Amino acid sequence: MVRLIGPEIVRQVADPGAIVTAVESAFAAAARGDCQMPPKSYIDLPNHGGDFRSMPGYVADESGEAAALKWVNVHPGNRRSGLPTVMGTIVYNDPSTGRPLAVMDGTLITRLRTGAAAAVATDHLARDDASTLGVIGAGAQTDAQFEAIRTVREIDRVVVADEDRTAAAEFASRHADRAEVSVETVADAARCDIVSTLTPVAEPIVHTAGEETHINAIGADATGKHEISDAILADARIVVDDVEQCRHSGEVNVPLANGRLDDSDITETLGAIVAGDRPGRRASDGVTVFDSTGLAIQDVAAARVVYEAAVERDLGETYDLVETER
Amino acid sequence: MVRLIGPEIVRQVADPGAIVTAVESAFAAAARGDCQMPPKSYIDLPNHGGDFRSMPGYVADESGEAAALKWVNVHPGNRRSGLPTVMGTIVYNDPSTGRPLAVMDGTLITRLRTGAAAAVATDHLARDDASTLGVIGAGAQTDAQFEAIRTVREIDRVVVADEDRTAAAEFASRHADRAEVSVETVADAARCDIVSTLTPVAEPIVHTAGEETHINAIGADATGKHEISDAILADARIVVDDVEQCRHSGEVNVPLANGRLDDSDITETLGAIVAGDRPGRRASDGVTVFDSTGLAIQDVAAARVVYEAAVERDLGETYDLVETER
Repeated sequence: MVRLIGPEIVRQVADPGAIVTAVESAFAAAARGDCQMPPKSYIDLPNHGGDFRSMPGYVADESGEAAALKWVNVHPGNRRSGLPTVMGTIVYNDPSTGRPLAVMDGTLITRLRTGAAAAVATDHLARDDASTLGVIGAGAQTDAQFEAIRTVREIDRVVVADEDRTAAAEFASRHADRAEVSVETVADAARCDIVSTLTPVAEPIVHTAGEETHINAIGADATGKHEISDAILADARIVVDDVEQCRHSGEVNVPLANGRLDDSDITETLGAIVAGDRPGRRASDGVTVFDSTGLAIQDVAAARVVYEAAVERDLGETYDLVETER
Repeated sequence: MVRLIGPEIVRQVADPGAIVTAVESAFAAAARGDCQMPPKSYIDLPNHGGDFRSMPGYVADESGEAAALKWVNVHPGNRRSGLPTVMGTIVYNDPSTGRPLAVMDGTLITRLRTGAAAAVATDHLARDDASTLGVIGAGAQTDAQFEAIRTVREIDRVVVADEDRTAAAEFASRHADRAEVSVETVADAARCDIVSTLTPVAEPIVHTAGEETHINAIGADATGKHEISDAILADARIVVDDVEQCRHSGEVNVPLANGRLDDSDITETLGAIVAGDRPGRRASDGVTVFDSTGLAIQDVAAARVVYEAAVERDLGETYDLVETER
């Protein structure tokens, strides 16, 4: 029997702190070579302005082994029809027999694991006393960023910036009981101790930052996308989730292409820092930037947390989805 | 809402003839360049003697567009635990928005689409008057082969061979009302007009064939596997499903490695024949061999037939599996 774990159950059981811990452990396992994540495979749909991505992954860490596949689309034109740009489905399996254990909503899990990676980076790269968070872009990922990052730092003030001031105000009112949240400009948000950039822009919108700001660069996910000025990136300590993925589709893809950065600027991975092979924030670091493109092992780690919580609370119907007779 | 299509529904709605037609159309679309199938991605699990394979695919043909992903394991040790070696899950999506439409049993669909490819090859490469079928190996795929092939030729006699004579006798009794079915030796089976080899052997077991036999070589699915003698292969007209996949894991992988065949022997694809770019059986062809490794587009085509039949008959519960709110 396969357990069905839809978004309502993910919402009920997903503990952001547990997912941050699991994602951190997966990054460390990747640095030790205890993970597998083949390159994403793409189905390109130029006639629909979209694509599908297949992301299989395997993690072996102190919680044991886990394997899953995420199959996710990116259709920016869906905004017109009211559907999300990105919808994901995760199949979660037992590595010892290959048997599928669960089919899960991958849309919310993607949001959670993306927030979690930013929180792991923040934990290692932001100042210990960081207490202000600037979020640039007020969408579904903005909530995920705040909820994950507040598990690693005590955030007492949040500055949210978005061209869509209604979306920014809605974010502020949703979180008013958790921190002092104000709607301000991008420049105001970028002066916070911790900043997350969450927009789809191709021309940088962040041109200044605090002297020791840690920036989570989340929005860039394709060639040509770029949120942060080359000047900030050129001076920053840059940490990537995956060198190859970032080179092609991360925040650094544009400055690498135009020569403002070169490959020697993107050698540090978050996994190496989490595993202790590289230091976290140093006094001399100044601005730090985490370039996040999203790894399959983040999905596997987050899916495991959600699956195990659902099983423990016996949430989600089970369904005879896959033939298990020989 | 996502429709759940488990094995009971696949059994109810899957029409082997419709799946053969759909798979044939997908092969033609592939030859025209109207398909996408990135290389399979593997997660290797040497500690469990198994692996996972991710197979995304997209087909555009006269029935429209379809996209799906199959995530499937291969764990030969599962025989000990009573689980199938191979269990598959298929996520079937709308290419225009990316939205998941169904999650489906991939185990039965894999069997059906593998039988269907053999039937397509048989239709183009067996003699028009072929009426006898030899099946070597009596497992779940054996039923799928017979049920698909009998949609393209009138089969009045089936010869089944298996070391496990109980399994062979069970196959014979299951199909006794459809043809004269007898349990005989591998050599007897291999003299039929049409032969399907369905075993996991690494040393060839087929050493003779009829003068104009068409052989569907299905069993070899990994480096080192090999069912048919090099002498037969060296004289036969060989048609592959995919040149690269066959080179690495098809029936021809061993003779290519040992030099009995070379790359010039495996240039003909089934797609080119179906599309009319290459001829079907010619009087001079003698023995023909279809080397089948299994393509993602076969899964997409078969999944579409099953999905559309399930929708038409409103079978399969629907479940709110994936977040579709922005």
